[in-house]
Amino acid sequence: MNYGNLTLHTDKYQINQMYAHWKNGTHNRKRVFNAFFRKNPFHNGYAVFAGLERIIEYIEQLRFEEEDIAYLQQQPESYDAAFLDALRSFRFTGTIYSVEEGQIVFPNEPIIRVECRVFEGHMIETALLNFMNYQTLIATKASRIRQIVGENDILLEFGTRRAQEADAAIWGARAAYIAGFHATSNMRAGKLFSIPTAGTHAHAWVQDHESEIEAFKSYMNVFPDNATLLVDTYNTLKSGVPNAIKVAKIMAEKGHRLKAIRLDSGDLATLSKEARRMLDEAGFEDVQISASNDLDEEVILHLKLQDAKITMWGIGTKLITAAESPALGGVYKMVAKETETGYEPVIKISENPEKIPTPGFTTLYRIINNRTGKTEGDYVAMVDENVQQEKLKMFDPSNPYKFKIVKDYTAKELLKPVFIDGSLVYKKKTVEEIRQFHFEQLQSIWEPTLRLLNPQTYFVDLSQKVYDTKMALIDQHAREAEEDN
Amino acid sequence: MNYGNLTLHTDKYQINQMYAHWKNGTHNRKRVFNAFFRKNPFHNGYAVFAGLERIIEYIEQLRFEEEDIAYLQQQPESYDAAFLDALRSFRFTGTIYSVEEGQIVFPNEPIIRVECRVFEGHMIETALLNFMNYQTLIATKASRIRQIVGENDILLEFGTRRAQEADAAIWGARAAYIAGFHATSNMRAGKLFSIPTAGTHAHAWVQDHESEIEAFKSYMNVFPDNATLLVDTYNTLKSGVPNAIKVAKIMAEKGHRLKAIRLDSGDLATLSKEARRMLDEAGFEDVQISASNDLDEEVILHLKLQDAKITMWGIGTKLITAAESPALGGVYKMVAKETETGYEPVIKISENPEKIPTPGFTTLYRIINNRTGKTEGDYVAMVDENVQQEKLKMFDPSNPYKFKIVKDYTAKELLKPVFIDGSLVYKKKTVEEIRQFHFEQLQSIWEPTLRLLNPQTYFVDLSQKVYDTKMALIDQHAREAEEDN
Repeated sequence: MNYGNLTLHTDKYQINQMYAHWKNGTHNRKRVFNAFFRKNPFHNGYAVFAGLERIIEYIEQLRFEEEDIAYLQQQPESYDAAFLDALRSFRFTGTIYSVEEGQIVFPNEPIIRVECRVFEGHMIETALLNFMNYQTLIATKASRIRQIVGENDILLEFGTRRAQEADAAIWGARAAYIAGFHATSNMRAGKLFSIPTAGTHAHAWVQDHESEIEAFKSYMNVFPDNATLLVDTYNTLKSGVPNAIKVAKIMAEKGHRLKAIRLDSGDLATLSKEARRMLDEAGFEDVQISASNDLDEEVILHLKLQDAKITMWGIGTKLITAAESPALGGVYKMVAKETETGYEPVIKISENPEKIPTPGFTTLYRIINNRTGKTEGDYVAMVDENVQQEKLKMFDPSNPYKFKIVKDYTAKELLKPVFIDGSLVYKKKTVEEIRQFHFEQLQSIWEPTLRLLNPQTYFVDLSQKVYDTKMALIDQHAREAEEDN
Repeated sequence: MNYGNLTLHTDKYQINQMYAHWKNGTHNRKRVFNAFFRKNPFHNGYAVFAGLERIIEYIEQLRFEEEDIAYLQQQPESYDAAFLDALRSFRFTGTIYSVEEGQIVFPNEPIIRVECRVFEGHMIETALLNFMNYQTLIATKASRIRQIVGENDILLEFGTRRAQEADAAIWGARAAYIAGFHATSNMRAGKLFSIPTAGTHAHAWVQDHESEIEAFKSYMNVFPDNATLLVDTYNTLKSGVPNAIKVAKIMAEKGHRLKAIRLDSGDLATLSKEARRMLDEAGFEDVQISASNDLDEEVILHLKLQDAKITMWGIGTKLITAAESPALGGVYKMVAKETETGYEPVIKISENPEKIPTPGFTTLYRIINNRTGKTEGDYVAMVDENVQQEKLKMFDPSNPYKFKIVKDYTAKELLKPVFIDGSLVYKKKTVEEIRQFHFEQLQSIWEPTLRLLNPQTYFVDLSQKVYDTKMALIDQHAREAEEDN
């Protein structure tokens, strides 16, 4: 099957709205859309943005091929031939600002801002959210796991077989690496993104041999200095670890060292401590113990509390699917429309008050205290506001009477230009650069926001102008609904 | 970026095991591997198999390209050049039997059986599981949702923006359709798999107009007989529904009918009943009410209990991510190895007893009672056993004293040949055929197994020969471990 490009990776209603705009002659009007999410996943205090590289590539490759046009032609909507012609020459001509991959982000702030013809704005929504939502989710999960294991343990992403299809496996591996993992087992991810790869062997290797010890011998003969032996095929402590030690001794005589053993079932705390004792007694203090089997940050925390002797962690299902909350509910909302006098803010009122987005042509700042180097909060302001002043009033938009005055600060704009009038202006970074950037950004966040349980809510404040705009629009629509009635 | 083919979509340990076999000269030995899962997802009583089409395509396209070889060359493992040469000519030459897509399957029975050189058997494990696990998971979730809504309501898959990346969106849409959904919003899935597509419009459409009523008018002008109007942008009952009715009346005068309204927030039970009343009073009894907003089978059940007037359901996140249990833990285990006297069963003992797979070169039967047309259970037997006899003893392998004698039955072999000695022999089916096949297969399952809460455990029994083989191998390894000690 020819999977073609991702141009049709969109919802039908986007095509239908494009068509309706085209029929009405309104398709070239400019609009501003913001992508944001409303809640951190995993009850975490922050999220780690990822997905931009994929979005850039998607935007650059947007082209309706003839087979896409032929497919649209068959739809019951009976699109006009002239509309399909317009699609043939469709290109993204708009402007996109985005936070950078690896950046720490928070609910209800613009992460990506798209300013373009409404025609294009509809077209790209679905794929943009799809990529941002998944990759940000996995980077955030990986960041939590990284926090638990600290800086010395090794984290391996082993999730491909349980991933939600092939794209999730590779982009999830990349997101995990950005947020602090050390390697992936997925060779395609390794190749495409230049991520280190790692792997041991399976139970099948042991089953394939006359005995476990023969299996270990033959594996170490092939990988004399880089073997991790899986010791739970038959019986971890009675056969697996003793056999690994026997083979390690034989190989030591030839000048080789066993790298690690791997536990994949049973009571990992008890087994790792006992295996550690056996390895140490045999003089193999440097042989590491790795573990896998439905691990996540909570299980790892408890294993560490029990003083488990594991220093390499193979993380599969719970990371690659973000098992406990497998979707980031990122959305993409129209916030401003072009009129003859410039951009005018628009709003969507919802039956659920927390779903009302912040209107206006805004941007996002992180307010860094010059003395501590730490953040005072994020600040959403109109693009034409001057945020770098002598002092800044920051107030909680849910409770405007709670405020603080910040002085001696640097307002760092987090939204960076990616496309300007259809041209890519963003210089792509390597995964190593993104990973480093991520670690640097973490430094500016206070510990109470980073902690894994009951983190302190981070301030995402609105400028007075943005706040007033939002309140005025809510009020206006409430009055209109009452008057119409 | 050139994503190339999926050949490197495998775990590093597979490549390393292939290499170790190649170095040892054992890579051409034949082995049998079974893919199966250990637990139904969602506490369901069954699963709906999907993923075969993707697996077939993957197997057919397996080729190491020069860029893949170049990548492997850079690995710290320093693979021999002759091994990389062997990969250049790598083709799948083995035999695969599989249950068909849409089939009802159960834990601990072989769903896919691979008989091939151990070299190839390792190579394909990861991708095969990745595809089977995800697609089976989503088909199963979709089947549960289909059961709740019954045969009259319309089910729409709307999950792309929350899917775990692009592949999940399209293959999930296909899996949902197989199991009874009626359409997807994803245009690429529609095009690639010939699934019907559907879509309404977004809040942005309404925000883009001077007023909600103008937005509705202009949308219905473009889609006069096929419009679904989203009524919750400002206020569902005070503005959205009254405006939809006003526009429907104007259009009715021109001979057009509004198709539906859509609710996307708020109390769907109350809003749908009130909207129904308003539509009916205005003479629009035929205008349907559709709903979306984090729906799944449980929410739908409760909406129906409250007599919600919704007949079209747009299902997103909870379906496409299988939110409550987002991974099917399918595994792939070596069960037999070729020796000079034929295939010899092999086993993997685990610290967790439920993880011990059933060994041997087996196949899978569904035992259909000729009188009722319903199944008596599934039956795993060695491939050389005669299962169609006058009577069959079926016993619970966890409690062998519980047994029944079945007479007047048909033993339907569920594993069908897909590849024989590397050649595709399976005739691919269209999604319509698979969907129909799925509905037919459901007919043979008793209701207690199909029910959504606390279903009866379905019997997956072992033949006496398979059972004895398993017990003997467990005993043998237990004794060996003790004696070694």
